[in-house]
Amino acid sequence: MPGRQGKLYVVGIGPGSNHLLTPQARAALERSHTVAGYRAYLELIPGLLTSKEVLASGMMQEVARAKAAIEVAASGKVVSVISSGDPGVYGMAGLVYEVLKEKGWQREGGMEVEVVPGIAALNAAAALLGAPLMHDFAAISLSDLLTPWEIIARRIDLAAQADFVIGLYNPRSRRRVGELDQACQILSRYRSAATPVGMVRCAFREEQRVVVTDLKHLPEQDVDMLTVVIVGNSSTFSFEGLMVTPRGYGEKYDLASPG
Amino acid sequence: MPGRQGKLYVVGIGPGSNHLLTPQARAALERSHTVAGYRAYLELIPGLLTSKEVLASGMMQEVARAKAAIEVAASGKVVSVISSGDPGVYGMAGLVYEVLKEKGWQREGGMEVEVVPGIAALNAAAALLGAPLMHDFAAISLSDLLTPWEIIARRIDLAAQADFVIGLYNPRSRRRVGELDQACQILSRYRSAATPVGMVRCAFREEQRVVVTDLKHLPEQDVDMLTVVIVGNSSTFSFEGLMVTPRGYGEKYDLASPG
Repeated sequence: MPGRQGKLYVVGIGPGSNHLLTPQARAALERSHTVAGYRAYLELIPGLLTSKEVLASGMMQEVARAKAAIEVAASGKVVSVISSGDPGVYGMAGLVYEVLKEKGWQREGGMEVEVVPGIAALNAAAALLGAPLMHDFAAISLSDLLTPWEIIARRIDLAAQADFVIGLYNPRSRRRVGELDQACQILSRYRSAATPVGMVRCAFREEQRVVVTDLKHLPEQDVDMLTVVIVGNSSTFSFEGLMVTPRGYGEKYDLASPG
Repeated sequence: MPGRQGKLYVVGIGPGSNHLLTPQARAALERSHTVAGYRAYLELIPGLLTSKEVLASGMMQEVARAKAAIEVAASGKVVSVISSGDPGVYGMAGLVYEVLKEKGWQREGGMEVEVVPGIAALNAAAALLGAPLMHDFAAISLSDLLTPWEIIARRIDLAAQADFVIGLYNPRSRRRVGELDQACQILSRYRSAATPVGMVRCAFREEQRVVVTDLKHLPEQDVDMLTVVIVGNSSTFSFEGLMVTPRGYGEKYDLASPG
């Protein structure tokens, strides 16, 4: 009964400011009967939840949340599962598809599924820090809940060798306090102590905090799960409280001369 | 005369669909007297250019464009420099700051500069492909205009060793036809021929094209400068024409059982 099928949106709400919520995300939420999400993220969009069924759940309840949202959509409703930032970057998109696969979902004839991209935390942080991501970069999560630390450490090592700008997600939690220090030790094998490092917490929200420091002073910084850390590459420079990674124009063009 | 200072926005317009243009980007453009950009990107936002001064320039005119925009803003006007996607990812944000630095710009007392993040091409492509970026990833541009090929090749090699999902920007141009083949050869040292690979051109626009293939068949694909290529990691699987990189929930949780 394809007519009875609902629709499942996986919606990126961006950093949490209404000004950075895309019209497409807003439209998906407005069309939805049911909105499912981590409680703290739902609190970022109170105006969009009026007279909807809301499935709020805690951290680490992602599997139950994905299953519940799929079940409601299968009953014929329009459902949005939300992620902060981009649902495709450490968000809910992958898990939703994994559960759908286990349930034998087929794209043709099955319920409609649509991922609505959002501005990722890494990109939001970069905009506030200046322009740190202007050259090749890597994103690494320091959370070892689902990935063994050995793999994470190896990725940091190889990314540092490759001279990637490195974005660190989930740098420290109440439970995990040592990983960021270990990451700094690995990075220090390849990058100077003066390498610019930026930290952004709650980008584009009232409680926003933006700090530019350097690799030497990173371990002592106040960072948590809501902080994104960006470590510059060997060319990144800081100036005026910003960090900028040159793309290479300065070596080919005269940037100082009048246009 | 700080009162005479203009304001310079560096605005990410996202993939080019109005539905993915954030309210913040729209507001910046509406406030601007002057909008500067690569001609093909300006054509994506015709409705926002009415009765504005438009500084359209060609590809590879980025330096002249940045200088012109800064000059107009210094004369007291509000100016937006646009990038497609996110201006902080291979976009105009870095160059604008580099030129400002050369000109001795100071954040305090100097003209106001604001980067408005946009949905990056990589994130837009990922949303259409399923969920390929769900684990640690690297973004690499294959353009050797400003970066020697040896550095690019080394980054591909180390990223492949690290088992990053890899997003390739600028995979092939009319002038550069061999780099993608070389990239495939490097990747093939570490990844199986069956590794899922996605290609997206003109995401969320009328001419959108989405293809999922595998590493073996990547070299023969029709890709150009407007295509983003995403190469899966060793766990990425394809199903129903999508590609999904598991985060690791399947090893800890039963995804098939009812919620």
